[in-house]
Amino acid sequence: MTTHDDTQQKSVSERAATASSTQGGYPTPAWHKAYHQGSRPDLRVPYREVLLSTGGTVPLYDTSGPYTDPAFEPDVRRGLPPLRDAWISQRGDVEDYHGREPRPEDDGLKHTTPRGVVVGAGLDNLDAVFPGRPRRPRRGRDGAAVTQLAYAKQGIITPEMEFVALREGMPAETVREELAAGRAVLPANVNHPESEPMIIGSKFLVKINANIGNSAVTSSIEEEVEKMSWATRWGADTVMDLSTGRNIHTTREWILRNSPVPIGTVPLYQALEKVDGKAEELSWEVYRDTVIEQCEQGVDYMTVHAGVLLRYVPLTARRKTGIVSRGGSIMAAWCLAHHQENFLYTNFVELCEILRAYDVTFSLGDGLRPGSIADANDEAQFAELQTLGELGRIARALDVQVMIEGPGHVPMHKIKENMDLQKEICDEAPFYTLGPLTTDVAPGYDHITSGIGAAMIAWWGTAKLCYVTPKEHLGLPNRDDVKTGVITYKIAAHAADVAKGHPSAQAWDDALSDARFEFRWEDQFNLALDPETARDFHDETLPAAPAKTAHFCSMCGPKFCSMKISQQIRAEHGDGSSAVQNGYDAEALAGMEAMSQEFKAQGGKVYLPVVD
Amino acid sequence: MTTHDDTQQKSVSERAATASSTQGGYPTPAWHKAYHQGSRPDLRVPYREVLLSTGGTVPLYDTSGPYTDPAFEPDVRRGLPPLRDAWISQRGDVEDYHGREPRPEDDGLKHTTPRGVVVGAGLDNLDAVFPGRPRRPRRGRDGAAVTQLAYAKQGIITPEMEFVALREGMPAETVREELAAGRAVLPANVNHPESEPMIIGSKFLVKINANIGNSAVTSSIEEEVEKMSWATRWGADTVMDLSTGRNIHTTREWILRNSPVPIGTVPLYQALEKVDGKAEELSWEVYRDTVIEQCEQGVDYMTVHAGVLLRYVPLTARRKTGIVSRGGSIMAAWCLAHHQENFLYTNFVELCEILRAYDVTFSLGDGLRPGSIADANDEAQFAELQTLGELGRIARALDVQVMIEGPGHVPMHKIKENMDLQKEICDEAPFYTLGPLTTDVAPGYDHITSGIGAAMIAWWGTAKLCYVTPKEHLGLPNRDDVKTGVITYKIAAHAADVAKGHPSAQAWDDALSDARFEFRWEDQFNLALDPETARDFHDETLPAAPAKTAHFCSMCGPKFCSMKISQQIRAEHGDGSSAVQNGYDAEALAGMEAMSQEFKAQGGKVYLPVVD
Repeated sequence: MTTHDDTQQKSVSERAATASSTQGGYPTPAWHKAYHQGSRPDLRVPYREVLLSTGGTVPLYDTSGPYTDPAFEPDVRRGLPPLRDAWISQRGDVEDYHGREPRPEDDGLKHTTPRGVVVGAGLDNLDAVFPGRPRRPRRGRDGAAVTQLAYAKQGIITPEMEFVALREGMPAETVREELAAGRAVLPANVNHPESEPMIIGSKFLVKINANIGNSAVTSSIEEEVEKMSWATRWGADTVMDLSTGRNIHTTREWILRNSPVPIGTVPLYQALEKVDGKAEELSWEVYRDTVIEQCEQGVDYMTVHAGVLLRYVPLTARRKTGIVSRGGSIMAAWCLAHHQENFLYTNFVELCEILRAYDVTFSLGDGLRPGSIADANDEAQFAELQTLGELGRIARALDVQVMIEGPGHVPMHKIKENMDLQKEICDEAPFYTLGPLTTDVAPGYDHITSGIGAAMIAWWGTAKLCYVTPKEHLGLPNRDDVKTGVITYKIAAHAADVAKGHPSAQAWDDALSDARFEFRWEDQFNLALDPETARDFHDETLPAAPAKTAHFCSMCGPKFCSMKISQQIRAEHGDGSSAVQNGYDAEALAGMEAMSQEFKAQGGKVYLPVVD
Repeated sequence: MTTHDDTQQKSVSERAATASSTQGGYPTPAWHKAYHQGSRPDLRVPYREVLLSTGGTVPLYDTSGPYTDPAFEPDVRRGLPPLRDAWISQRGDVEDYHGREPRPEDDGLKHTTPRGVVVGAGLDNLDAVFPGRPRRPRRGRDGAAVTQLAYAKQGIITPEMEFVALREGMPAETVREELAAGRAVLPANVNHPESEPMIIGSKFLVKINANIGNSAVTSSIEEEVEKMSWATRWGADTVMDLSTGRNIHTTREWILRNSPVPIGTVPLYQALEKVDGKAEELSWEVYRDTVIEQCEQGVDYMTVHAGVLLRYVPLTARRKTGIVSRGGSIMAAWCLAHHQENFLYTNFVELCEILRAYDVTFSLGDGLRPGSIADANDEAQFAELQTLGELGRIARALDVQVMIEGPGHVPMHKIKENMDLQKEICDEAPFYTLGPLTTDVAPGYDHITSGIGAAMIAWWGTAKLCYVTPKEHLGLPNRDDVKTGVITYKIAAHAADVAKGHPSAQAWDDALSDARFEFRWEDQFNLALDPETARDFHDETLPAAPAKTAHFCSMCGPKFCSMKISQQIRAEHGDGSSAVQNGYDAEALAGMEAMSQEFKAQGGKVYLPVVD
């Protein structure tokens, strides 16, 4: 058993020691925060640099925000620095104003509750919690569209677009073109300057969303903030806060002020809380008020179930699992209770006018998505998709950015039809799907049943995947479930990036494969999506430190290892081109005996280990 | 909060109490062992019956063997009853004979070790361990082909074929036809009468294989037997014993005598042990002796790397990860050491003559499969595939059953080409693939990276999937890893069955979806691939027993639940057909107000919960 040169391994730790911090840092010291410098001093695009034992580095896309920069001192009560503040104000098209006054019912407290009552870290304590508050909200001056779509249409490349171009390794002009055409969105509320710009569109890296949120049954504010930063640490590109019950407003404030990624919500959930959970008591006024509340806080994209039309609701009656979207069923209940058309549909233009003044991106919700593979691709689902296409055209005409949400539960042979129809009906607006689950028989493993569908639909063009955790259909995810969901969806997204031929995607796989072939175990762990788990699994079988540089795997053991043999073959045949033969002619056969002798003379070890 | 009628729940337990046993039993009392009776008294085909709280049952394919039959008393030292004994002997074409004498080197003991030395539960103790031994091995009389392929070609429907037909819910004639055409295999060594017949072919349910096996580094005999029965309990259709190091012969004997599923091996691994791990010292004679040893023990299918030709080896030199198949690299090393053609290729006809006398199925190994997505679909891989196609035709002509092994590591956009080429080159012989992994960046999660590829390639026609556990590339799987690997691959296989439209596949999903929609939580758990995990995850959030029949999920909480709303919609609209409207004409609008009043008069709860 040979051991590797230990000095190489040490240099990684040494380099990392100066560059990383354990407090809120990366899960391995070989990950190092680095920046691409843009055209202005305050435009620095973060990425993750993986330090290799060979002295080389591998740059990877990074969503973890300032927390993983050792120069940053996190303080959840101060929030993140407002990265985009100057970019927004320098455009000169926003005004700050005296925003809507927070009310007890924003946090799910009864209208009659005296304001003086302190409930946990509730709404009344916001000023105390965030010393920077009250910050006056911003909006487009005189209702101007201050959206990245509006700028892109005007031919302007904003700092946000430049940031995204550097982040993706794509020309800024491509970013602008895709945004202008509505084929991509850059969710960036002017009231969430803390977020690092990112883009969602089929020409770019596939993105993933993690859902968090307390519910009436369980969970706390601190837990949700922790889940958000935990999810982004493992690769969540956006986070949706789906809180229900108490403290919705306050939870969201904490999340927004501490989030380096765009935050999405379903305003309907909070609106429903304001009417004590009675769907029939909802109104456009309550909804509108909630949307403005959330726009002012800085929510970057909102799921709006405006496609659940009254006439579509009966189409779900024949289904095996009816309506499974919470928002969809709330609107269906409202439509039925009033026998009127969905107020989100009838007030859609006004909603667009609100959203464009803050640059909030629509995520047009698929309220009638299938809840079982039996219901996939049915009349109700595709009827709603037609309406979402129509609404998307209206929104874009009003300069509001638009994503379209998609299913859900779809067997493999029906997935592509979803993508093809969505592209056609929705003018290639970014598709944002939940899974889809490819079978319903594995509750407890729906990250996997859906990871299969997610990888496939992303390969075919879906721009963002909403993760599914192992707890889907069973309960609320804890910290471990969030990590498992994120890692599973990073796998699906990356597998799709590779299959789509994204220029930077396969380099990562190649770097890891090289490390594997060359028995650089530490590099293999550090290049993994989850170094901790890879290292732990290895150490279970071969815990001793030398094993990590040993020239064999724990699968075959020291006596024989296929990788070892292969390295020998490479050393003999070089690039192999000269040795390629399609058969054995007389001459070749004559040469074989000579080669055999040569092989044995070298001690039967044809090749030396290859190290770059 | 309404609670369900508890008497329904109780009746499941009561029915189960009489039908199930905890000792070696199913993971939930609602699973019940049942049998389809065939045309002769000793032909009883097991299946798993899931007892529902509604009084109904759902029949599922079952691989767990007699262990889950409460009438069976397991005794690992007695082994399983020889189910197929009479079927084999009554055909009158086999003879029993004095087999090869076991030798110390069969268990990896040095040739010089005195036979009297007892090493663990080693070879010398076999007779003591298995009171039934020594059983004389059987083989085809005068070298006759006693294979299911030979019978199928002659138009004979064997009891094994009838068993499989009942198990799959397919006509026996279809089974015979697919076997005769070589599009399916039924691995069933005459010396493994304990196995329950199963079929591998693209017209049938997709099967999965679990690999087990001790190695030089870790693991014991008892652990491996336990892993085998554990894997079949969760759904493994076949098991490969990939043991290396000590006690190979003895481990295999234990596994075979206790296995209800076909057992596969790679004889090359044991042959290599017999020459102390030195590939260049291998010979046809050592290999042949090992094959006969394993044929006599009852191995049902053998991976044979006969396609690794000397002229293909240099094609791997340009690869990123060379040769990663252990068997492939052993043969490559041998070819290079001798500069002679692969002895498995040059002696292939003799090998066929041995295998057909026991009905051992070839699994023609893809020794040059890619070990990274960078190497997928390259010249080396497809050159070998051509040879495997050629060898398959020779084997079938000699009445030997044949599967073809496939990759490995393949990005999504290159998977279909693998399947299409294999069908064309190998005359639709069953394809048996390892994954494939769709990306290399997630060691620790390769059950998922490969589960994605496995589902896709199975949808396109792969007949059997070799599982990958979370420990792949890192270490040897433990009990939990085996379960995770099996469940993940059952998901992939079942998702493919659904996508292929196998007649029985979607009924399972539908039963679970019905249970979900109707809040029958216990039925939902019991219909899950893994009831234990589903139940545990649910109980983490809502541990109280009443929650399992509560009419809400832990995701939305008691106040609002989309499933509840949907049930109401169904109750109002019945099958929905009469209510379908494409727009609102004057008449429709007039009717809306009336419907609204009616809705409110019913208390705003339009629909009653639907229970079958």
